Amino acid sequence: MRNFQLKNPTKIIFGKGEMPKMAAELPKDAKILLLYGGGSIMKNGIYDQVKAALKGFEVAEFGGIPANPEYAILMQALKVIKEKNITYLLAVGGGSVIDGVKFLSAAALYEGEEPWDILTKRIRTKKGMPFGTVLTLPATGSEMNSGAVITRKDTKEKRTMGGPGLFPQFSVLDPEVIKSVPKRQLANGLADAYTHVTEQYLTYPVGALLQDRFAESILQTLVEIAPKIMEEDFNYETASNFMWCCTMALNGLIQKGVPSDWATHMMGHELTALHGIDHARTLAIIAGNHYTYTFEDKKEKLAQYAERIWGVQEGTIEEKARIGIIKTTEFYQSLGIETKLSAYTDAYDGTAEIIAKRFADRGWAGLGERQKVTPSDVQKIVEMSY
Amino acid sequence: MRNFQLKNPTKIIFGKGEMPKMAAELPKDAKILLLYGGGSIMKNGIYDQVKAALKGFEVAEFGGIPANPEYAILMQALKVIKEKNITYLLAVGGGSVIDGVKFLSAAALYEGEEPWDILTKRIRTKKGMPFGTVLTLPATGSEMNSGAVITRKDTKEKRTMGGPGLFPQFSVLDPEVIKSVPKRQLANGLADAYTHVTEQYLTYPVGALLQDRFAESILQTLVEIAPKIMEEDFNYETASNFMWCCTMALNGLIQKGVPSDWATHMMGHELTALHGIDHARTLAIIAGNHYTYTFEDKKEKLAQYAERIWGVQEGTIEEKARIGIIKTTEFYQSLGIETKLSAYTDAYDGTAEIIAKRFADRGWAGLGERQKVTPSDVQKIVEMSY
Repeated sequence: MRNFQLKNPTKIIFGKGEMPKMAAELPKDAKILLLYGGGSIMKNGIYDQVKAALKGFEVAEFGGIPANPEYAILMQALKVIKEKNITYLLAVGGGSVIDGVKFLSAAALYEGEEPWDILTKRIRTKKGMPFGTVLTLPATGSEMNSGAVITRKDTKEKRTMGGPGLFPQFSVLDPEVIKSVPKRQLANGLADAYTHVTEQYLTYPVGALLQDRFAESILQTLVEIAPKIMEEDFNYETASNFMWCCTMALNGLIQKGVPSDWATHMMGHELTALHGIDHARTLAIIAGNHYTYTFEDKKEKLAQYAERIWGVQEGTIEEKARIGIIKTTEFYQSLGIETKLSAYTDAYDGTAEIIAKRFADRGWAGLGERQKVTPSDVQKIVEMSY
Repeated sequence: MRNFQLKNPTKIIFGKGEMPKMAAELPKDAKILLLYGGGSIMKNGIYDQVKAALKGFEVAEFGGIPANPEYAILMQALKVIKEKNITYLLAVGGGSVIDGVKFLSAAALYEGEEPWDILTKRIRTKKGMPFGTVLTLPATGSEMNSGAVITRKDTKEKRTMGGPGLFPQFSVLDPEVIKSVPKRQLANGLADAYTHVTEQYLTYPVGALLQDRFAESILQTLVEIAPKIMEEDFNYETASNFMWCCTMALNGLIQKGVPSDWATHMMGHELTALHGIDHARTLAIIAGNHYTYTFEDKKEKLAQYAERIWGVQEGTIEEKARIGIIKTTEFYQSLGIETKLSAYTDAYDGTAEIIAKRFADRGWAGLGERQKVTPSDVQKIVEMSY
């Protein structure tokens, strides 16, 4: 096990009917900016619940934060924050809205001239404007971590940021919100959470027995509930397990003391930036090919994964590991997710070269848990994904 | 799954050689009281490491906090805190020292006349004097939770306390400390952590799939490492898994959204208070009999436990559940721990009546996850444990 530090100060308020409790978490004199996405919260009743909980507070609003939160739109929100002397941000939405609010939390107190620098210069935010979240779509885990991913359309870029100052102060997780989420987005959420775990688990063994089992617990639970989520009507118990899995998949716990990969995400982000493909689907396109390409480096954990998640008891380490990769791709497909880039765009030609060149230009010489996946390797993995 | 709230602000600093990092967690102007137990930290080098890390800080010391931290001694420490205008407490020890420091954290800011009231009147501490810990013995999980157990010799009492203000600000967890811990105490630590999990897991099913698997992950890992801890020389990897299991067993995570029992602990505390038996050993005396007595209420989870932890695949729910109880008792015995009260004292006669009367006097009408274990049930369970 590696040395690690763990501190996660976010307060989770979990369960149906808990929305009113957020009022106790907000400073009485807060000037709140409520931020949300495309307006689905107006239809499913969440907006009304939030407004009821905020009764008595001074609240301004900013709607329209899109999936893959867009820099230009966030800069408009930043203007509102400054003009209205906002002191507290409240994200009501999924990972995109929450990530956008994390950027705003950092940018609101950033002293540099160009907030985009926070992303390109990888500036870690130690203190941001305080914020809370009301999660409307389980998937990204952003509700209990300090990272964010921001997109810039004019340069077709998607970049990451974070820092210990960017944990939500609280997050309200009410599984009832899942009732109104379209199946396509539920599939994305399952695939996203699943891949968050594999990024932190399918690396190489370091004798971290408990972390491995925690990661496996999340994967086993996602595999168990996925058919119910996809094929059955809303069920509160299933929904609550789904929601808690998504949060635990990326709140930092399972990555403590172990190596982590994230190369699939890095390549996937580029597929979203270039072709507008849903984030979770880009992961499904890349993951299996990445594991096949880096097979020798990952085969021990792949074999353990095949055994413990998919019940593969026969065969050599290599044979089990190969089955583990196949099972992963089949899992994405069981959610109705295509696992080839060509299923999403006809214009895939040249994608691999562009991504490899971008990584080289950014000086990203070695991705993955061994920091040895070069831009030239990236080109081959993306080509395998066509 | 039940509704829950989760917030755990403790910063964990985990791994060998990390002791110096605690300096960055302490306010520069802190007037620190370093508290420790019987002085073993003088022999194993931990005292020197802590003092080196505290170089430049104003530090007073208070040693001699005994196992089952004793009220009268803690009151002496409280006097030192007030006389020296201490502003920060640092516990260097196992669960007893840390629990004692939690009491002091609460008592230092308590405005009532009699600090013992914090325990008897079950006063929840919202704000205590800030403190950190350096863990020297993995077992109780006190290093990452907000609860404590305090003993009072003159009345032969052992009582619990807690509150959101009693989380350590940081805890240094260096598995190397295990090198110098006697095997007897390692056995206690394994039994203690194991029983912390079963208290939160062997209840009744509420469809909390992930919490169940997390609990099982800790049990599986403890079962895997226990023979190595007990029979082999110090091994850093094994020690680090042991230490992390103990912390995760009682930092609040696995109990979120599920019922919890704690009747074994309540009865066990009385055996310590009356007969001076090591805490962990009292749990081993009670647990199996408690599960046998409440069999009908616990059999579903006992069967799941037998399947997933002990690989019992054949038989009815009842048959599996019975084997689960036997395996539990055998696990304690595999650590060299006796599971009958009569193995510890000849003066066991009458113990059950005394405990039942104490619980009745305190108004504890119903213990356990269904709040239906009455003082008369307690009497029978303790009698079964003779």
